[in-house]
Amino acid sequence: MAESAGPLLPALKSIVGEANILTADEDVAPFCIDWRERYRGRARAVVRPGSTAEVASVVRCCAAHSVPIVPQAGNTSLCGGATPHAAGDEVVISLSRLNRVRAIDKDNATMTVEAGMPLAAVQDAAAQAGLLFPLSLAAEGSCQIGGNLSTNAGGTAVLRYGNARDLVLGLEVVLADGRMWENLKGLRKDNTGYDLKQLFLGSEGTLGIITAALLKLFPKPRTSTTAWAAVANVAVAVGLLGAMRAALGDRLTGFELVSADCVALACAQFPAMTDPLPGHPWYVLIQADDAAANSPVTAEVENALADAIAGGQVRDATIAQSESQASALWSLREHIPDAQRREGPNMKHDISVPVSRIPVFLDRAREALDAAFPGLRYVVFGHLGDGNLHYNLSPPLGVEAAAFIAETARANRIVYDLVAEHGGSFSAEHGIGQMKRADLAHYKPAIDIELMRRIKQALDPHSLLNPGKVLP
Amino acid sequence: MAESAGPLLPALKSIVGEANILTADEDVAPFCIDWRERYRGRARAVVRPGSTAEVASVVRCCAAHSVPIVPQAGNTSLCGGATPHAAGDEVVISLSRLNRVRAIDKDNATMTVEAGMPLAAVQDAAAQAGLLFPLSLAAEGSCQIGGNLSTNAGGTAVLRYGNARDLVLGLEVVLADGRMWENLKGLRKDNTGYDLKQLFLGSEGTLGIITAALLKLFPKPRTSTTAWAAVANVAVAVGLLGAMRAALGDRLTGFELVSADCVALACAQFPAMTDPLPGHPWYVLIQADDAAANSPVTAEVENALADAIAGGQVRDATIAQSESQASALWSLREHIPDAQRREGPNMKHDISVPVSRIPVFLDRAREALDAAFPGLRYVVFGHLGDGNLHYNLSPPLGVEAAAFIAETARANRIVYDLVAEHGGSFSAEHGIGQMKRADLAHYKPAIDIELMRRIKQALDPHSLLNPGKVLP
Repeated sequence: MAESAGPLLPALKSIVGEANILTADEDVAPFCIDWRERYRGRARAVVRPGSTAEVASVVRCCAAHSVPIVPQAGNTSLCGGATPHAAGDEVVISLSRLNRVRAIDKDNATMTVEAGMPLAAVQDAAAQAGLLFPLSLAAEGSCQIGGNLSTNAGGTAVLRYGNARDLVLGLEVVLADGRMWENLKGLRKDNTGYDLKQLFLGSEGTLGIITAALLKLFPKPRTSTTAWAAVANVAVAVGLLGAMRAALGDRLTGFELVSADCVALACAQFPAMTDPLPGHPWYVLIQADDAAANSPVTAEVENALADAIAGGQVRDATIAQSESQASALWSLREHIPDAQRREGPNMKHDISVPVSRIPVFLDRAREALDAAFPGLRYVVFGHLGDGNLHYNLSPPLGVEAAAFIAETARANRIVYDLVAEHGGSFSAEHGIGQMKRADLAHYKPAIDIELMRRIKQALDPHSLLNPGKVLP
Repeated sequence: MAESAGPLLPALKSIVGEANILTADEDVAPFCIDWRERYRGRARAVVRPGSTAEVASVVRCCAAHSVPIVPQAGNTSLCGGATPHAAGDEVVISLSRLNRVRAIDKDNATMTVEAGMPLAAVQDAAAQAGLLFPLSLAAEGSCQIGGNLSTNAGGTAVLRYGNARDLVLGLEVVLADGRMWENLKGLRKDNTGYDLKQLFLGSEGTLGIITAALLKLFPKPRTSTTAWAAVANVAVAVGLLGAMRAALGDRLTGFELVSADCVALACAQFPAMTDPLPGHPWYVLIQADDAAANSPVTAEVENALADAIAGGQVRDATIAQSESQASALWSLREHIPDAQRREGPNMKHDISVPVSRIPVFLDRAREALDAAFPGLRYVVFGHLGDGNLHYNLSPPLGVEAAAFIAETARANRIVYDLVAEHGGSFSAEHGIGQMKRADLAHYKPAIDIELMRRIKQALDPHSLLNPGKVLP
């Protein structure tokens, strides 16, 4: 092939043009450090193809030179999944220039977008068509849809709409040998052979490079309600989740758990925040949405909460009376990670267990961690509706941050052992990347890793795609 | 391994016991013919293991003897996917004795069931726990959940709940070498490596044998509404679908298209049926359900239909005033296939195209088929909400059935070529089995088939699992 002739860099240049290949240290650097600044890699070059055909040519060229590839979209991985290694032998393929909406089909309730579109831009394009693309997460202004799909992103609306995987009807992918595979048909039912797109969703760029996707769209909510309820303990919160689901069905789009310590932390770090219902140990933030314009969903949430107060499950509750009150409740929830960061270094755990086992898991984990780290402070919040908690730990008062962070491995082992014991996951929504490969090796059954290797071998036999990520 | 010592049949007998291995022709015969009686195969034996461990031992034993395996659940495949070949060298593994509910977790809204449970029994077990398992299809009394999952079954509630694949959180699978792989954790978020269960869902027993599954459950609907609306053409029906989705959101669980010819056929063959709104060319059957007990969903459907009548999209409509009226409307819809069968032989096409392209596809197909088969009668109905139509053809009046059926290949080519031209699927929900392997070879891009072969090679290198199915 023409693109493989001669030395690598001139060949790549001939594909994408001089302006779209970066080799100077200062140009390459931003692509070689992850968002949390935990990994600093090096790369031969950053290549910025402008089309799927160019991505394919670049991959063929790299394959011909046996040069490994790191696909990168918004570079917001929390696990170093899009950061090249320190060895510096890799080429970063940035998908950012593939950022068009290719099509919106309102009657089919679908849209086709390129991998480099920021998630917020995808949401906006759907909204402009009068429809909803429901994937939503903190990084949505800077993350890109190709990254969301290759990491099977979660977010705040999984309870109702599922993870990123569930929002995809079709993909376009450049394979490890530079050929293109695509199925962008937009069918809700298609049982003609193996569902190949599932291989590329959530495999973090190790099996192929997603260049475009055909996404499901949904009716836009026209009535929304946000409530904040105080409960005595997490078991009661789990019971309330069941009651709210039974009352609201799919209109229950969010059910977040927040501890009193989280509220106190957010209010301490952000003086504009206020505690909506002081004096209780746990809270839930309830979001309900309805496609209908004049839905009784607010009255239904009120009635369900009144029943729960009468039944003694809920101690107190407040329903937002305006959009600004609703925003204030969500803002309180969303400022917790930032408040914790401002307060100083901490340990984060993105875990899930079956919803039913969250109360016992929390009790057991607290018991074990209190014994190991007396005075430890717990910052526990997250998507109770999906069983996904951000189980974060701040150092005991008076303990040096550095000394505390040095204990990360010991704390992780305690938390992840108990997660495993309760049938849970040590990486609910963030993936594996570089950061959790050792955890994967430790906690995943050997047969799973063997099957993953066989799939990797089948699709990327020379291990050119994002090597050293995911697979241990 | 002990189970592989000596000749095959005694070895199998020692695993499952004398009573659970069938070898006499009359015992084996029912397992060797498909539900539509199109394929008659032979088998060395039918083995009926009573546990996953026994399934694994049977597979190891067959692998040691290089004997191919046909996994079989309810044996209701419409494509011969569970029927052994005529050569008679295969062993059928019947999953019917694996028929227990292993667990129901109400707080997690999940249940764990074995592969041999009839779908209706799965639905009943969920209902007894106060929850809904929404997969529903005509064969639900006899099909089994393992077959539903390995064929990624569709059915009447896909618009709201998705296909079978979307209802699964975990699987237990016996691999081609007789080892067991399982992930029955019940997590809604788990991004620890490749999502291996996706390989086994929808691959029709060619990559592994599903022995158990952990399924999602949903709130039970407590308010339901069924309506029947007359429209001038299919384009109007597609517009109405968008309007109803916008008004009802997820409460719209079914949106079925029915032609006037279908209604006439059902009423002619089943005199108890009546035409709800005579004199229009097309109808839609609308089902809306709400988890809330006193939901205004009926009023919302009425209002949306009143708007559509005022706007001229809907010509007339009726809303069921009782459960028996609702049942009568669904019964009319569900009797169409039987009415057509009673009327005589016909050709069936289980197709999908993007919802937005259904009107133009129907026009083009009719034009082409009228030219090829003057007087052809069209029996068109199906799940418009998912773009999935049952596009069935009955012979022109006066044409001999046998002469008509002899034209199947020519008619299929016309229909499937146009399906492909409109970005559709020639097998929306029934799969490939034996029947559509040649169509797969013809219509699927070569790269898809190559990727499927690589996956097959990775998971079943000796091609022992359901050989000659799916892959061309």
